[in-house]
Amino acid sequence: MKLDWKGLGHYFFFGLVVLFMTSVALKAEPKQGPDVTYFKLENGLDVVVIPDRRAPVVTHMVWYRVGAADELPGVSGIAHFLEHLMFKGTEKIAPGEFSKIIARHGGEDNAFTSQDVTAYFQRVAKDKLPMVMEMEADRMANLKLLEKDVLTERDVILEERRSRIENSPSSILSEQLGASLYKNHPYGIPVIGWMHEMAVLNRQNALDHYNKYYAPNNAILVVAGDVSSDEVRTLAEKYYGPIAKGPELEPRKRQLEPPSVAPRRITHKDERAGKLTLQRLYLVPSYKSAPKGDSEALELLMKIAAEGTTSRLYKKLVIEDKLASSTGGGYSASGMEYGNLYLYAMPQSGVSIDKIEAAIDDVLADIVANGVSELELARARNSYIADYIYGNDSQSGLARRYGFALATGWSIQDIESYPTRLKAVTPEDIQQVAGKYLDLKASVTGVLQPILKQTAEVKGTQ
Amino acid sequence: MKLDWKGLGHYFFFGLVVLFMTSVALKAEPKQGPDVTYFKLENGLDVVVIPDRRAPVVTHMVWYRVGAADELPGVSGIAHFLEHLMFKGTEKIAPGEFSKIIARHGGEDNAFTSQDVTAYFQRVAKDKLPMVMEMEADRMANLKLLEKDVLTERDVILEERRSRIENSPSSILSEQLGASLYKNHPYGIPVIGWMHEMAVLNRQNALDHYNKYYAPNNAILVVAGDVSSDEVRTLAEKYYGPIAKGPELEPRKRQLEPPSVAPRRITHKDERAGKLTLQRLYLVPSYKSAPKGDSEALELLMKIAAEGTTSRLYKKLVIEDKLASSTGGGYSASGMEYGNLYLYAMPQSGVSIDKIEAAIDDVLADIVANGVSELELARARNSYIADYIYGNDSQSGLARRYGFALATGWSIQDIESYPTRLKAVTPEDIQQVAGKYLDLKASVTGVLQPILKQTAEVKGTQ
Repeated sequence: MKLDWKGLGHYFFFGLVVLFMTSVALKAEPKQGPDVTYFKLENGLDVVVIPDRRAPVVTHMVWYRVGAADELPGVSGIAHFLEHLMFKGTEKIAPGEFSKIIARHGGEDNAFTSQDVTAYFQRVAKDKLPMVMEMEADRMANLKLLEKDVLTERDVILEERRSRIENSPSSILSEQLGASLYKNHPYGIPVIGWMHEMAVLNRQNALDHYNKYYAPNNAILVVAGDVSSDEVRTLAEKYYGPIAKGPELEPRKRQLEPPSVAPRRITHKDERAGKLTLQRLYLVPSYKSAPKGDSEALELLMKIAAEGTTSRLYKKLVIEDKLASSTGGGYSASGMEYGNLYLYAMPQSGVSIDKIEAAIDDVLADIVANGVSELELARARNSYIADYIYGNDSQSGLARRYGFALATGWSIQDIESYPTRLKAVTPEDIQQVAGKYLDLKASVTGVLQPILKQTAEVKGTQ
Repeated sequence: MKLDWKGLGHYFFFGLVVLFMTSVALKAEPKQGPDVTYFKLENGLDVVVIPDRRAPVVTHMVWYRVGAADELPGVSGIAHFLEHLMFKGTEKIAPGEFSKIIARHGGEDNAFTSQDVTAYFQRVAKDKLPMVMEMEADRMANLKLLEKDVLTERDVILEERRSRIENSPSSILSEQLGASLYKNHPYGIPVIGWMHEMAVLNRQNALDHYNKYYAPNNAILVVAGDVSSDEVRTLAEKYYGPIAKGPELEPRKRQLEPPSVAPRRITHKDERAGKLTLQRLYLVPSYKSAPKGDSEALELLMKIAAEGTTSRLYKKLVIEDKLASSTGGGYSASGMEYGNLYLYAMPQSGVSIDKIEAAIDDVLADIVANGVSELELARARNSYIADYIYGNDSQSGLARRYGFALATGWSIQDIESYPTRLKAVTPEDIQQVAGKYLDLKASVTGVLQPILKQTAEVKGTQ
């Protein structure tokens, strides 16, 4: 059981962390999908119920329509910090007890923060649903923050940043790439925050964020599992219904990017880096922001070009030319305003970064010039369907799919029609988006370069 | 006379625009300097009087302690836009009449916006001082903005951006370098604003900025010229005295930069670029933010290393090795939180960017390893003194020196002791700051690369 906060696995959706997420979100299909119901409570709480009768288990999630990209300037990390602090208790639940109670009843819980959402999750036996709902509703309205608990937890997030970013050369580079990809939009600021700003976050910052954003009219309740829509409605009315509406919030509006005019490049040399690595990001629209059809085509483009061992990149660089020991890539598309295409390659020893980069550019240029085949497209589509079916098998995957999409402004219709829209993609569409978005001007390329550890005589002991 | 707004010469302090400013600010010396007086009105207006009896002329400036770096997210350019709109009149002065009135009385006027300040300037015959004071005080309190004037002027600033940035490949690159140098601090956003944000600035944005920041307690009046402190006090009491205090403002506080961990590089290819050019910026402290002694040493370091034709860079790259047709550089230090060291070089035709860059790095590495000579330091100091004396000769230069420094948080003592502090710099100090700040991790390098214009057959007519 996860009783230790450090072990709770709070997720950060940023840079390569978000990049390497499998894209489970937003992949449902009307005929194969679950029979989802939706309703809204008087106080504005959106409720989504996803039936899944395979086992007497339920997944309960609350999503807040707020993430790191909604933070005020200078308080980076507050969305994630508050996510931690939500485990500090209320009048009814003592600090640190929340997860222990869930665990004692055989369940598990978790929470995560991204640029666009903050979400809380529990999976429990179906008869424990009223209990977790009562607990989650309680901390939506009655969070109690003691100064000393805030300070202790701040040490925890600082340590978390140290271990996840400062101790990881590839995360350092990813963070720099993200900061460079965005010149104006807050996605350039890491979800966990900049260390120097995290170090001075305080109780009042957390309360300001909580009071503004944590309210039923800014939240989505998703319940998936062995429960009917009517049962959920009755419970939701009972536990969430009495919570007062929060302030009316302005529509979420982040500053947009200026046009992309010049390629950027970042080299991070690090004694701790394992292998020479090339990474590249292209700024592109997200599912939510893309012109009609573009995100569907980008999804399949990146499957064909870069995802996995059947991709063009892998076949050319790893298998045929033996230039790289691994390659990969994909389309990170869940952001409200922007997504990115990402690529990476690790050269075989003795192969230069320039050579690997030229080889990647050749593979991409070939797609832009000559398109992809019907066969490749069919294979990518099938791979997508396989992912999709796998996604449907996972109760928590389904809850995440619906919750994330709704919290970032999609409708249930958008979610459910996505697979159908994806099936309509043609080879011409793929060639067209390749030409449109694989634009180096909109890219940042990163090189992670291992360097020899300097000896104590030269540099002094550290 | 400057009756056309486009001809008014509103300055932008950004990227290479700020970089190439001669550093007139902050160079006074106690013994040689003018006999400056300072007082404060009841409503909080700071007043500085700088006697200059050489001609019956006065320079009248009002400085507001607000610049582009104080803008809210998403409304970039509003500080500069309001600067334009301040010429749109009041109940007493019709739109567009302000400068015409000054001109009719034989004077001239101007205004400019930087990341940290917004300032308004008039130079007139001494008997016109009451008139300009009345006019400037009037628009501090009574600006009248008509919707149609706001919209017309917005077209003006959009055109200004087009002509200054979009039509200038080197400005495009400078803007990108600035955006990359800063990962968190608002200095990364151009003073003039991002086009897409400027395009939707409106009357209310301007009024919000005006009502918050334009008030006597957020302003500094500087009068230089043929006038006594007592005369200025009497006039200031009469014209500025009646203006009510504005809201108490929080101390100015911008989000600071995370540590610099990896060098960045930006390549801008442009058909309109004249010559292949290398530019580099290093993020360093400013006059205001530097640890004691560091900015003084950086100032002289950059004079020795990069400024002008006697610099090490010029002598090595242009004269000795004939690799470059020109080189330059300096220390841009006027920002409240950060400054930068800048370098540029244009290679001789046939010389690669890599070769030029290696040659620059060698020149800098030599200073880090071996320091500079007493002779070089003496020459740099003398050059500084020459600049300083020249600065004292200019009435408007003096007004700018004091106004800018006070508006960004210096005291008169700080300004006047700067030359003395600069004289205390030793060769060891210079070697020390060279080692400390010429750190590629804190740098961004830009390449401006001319490309052949593509023919109409290949690319289509544009």
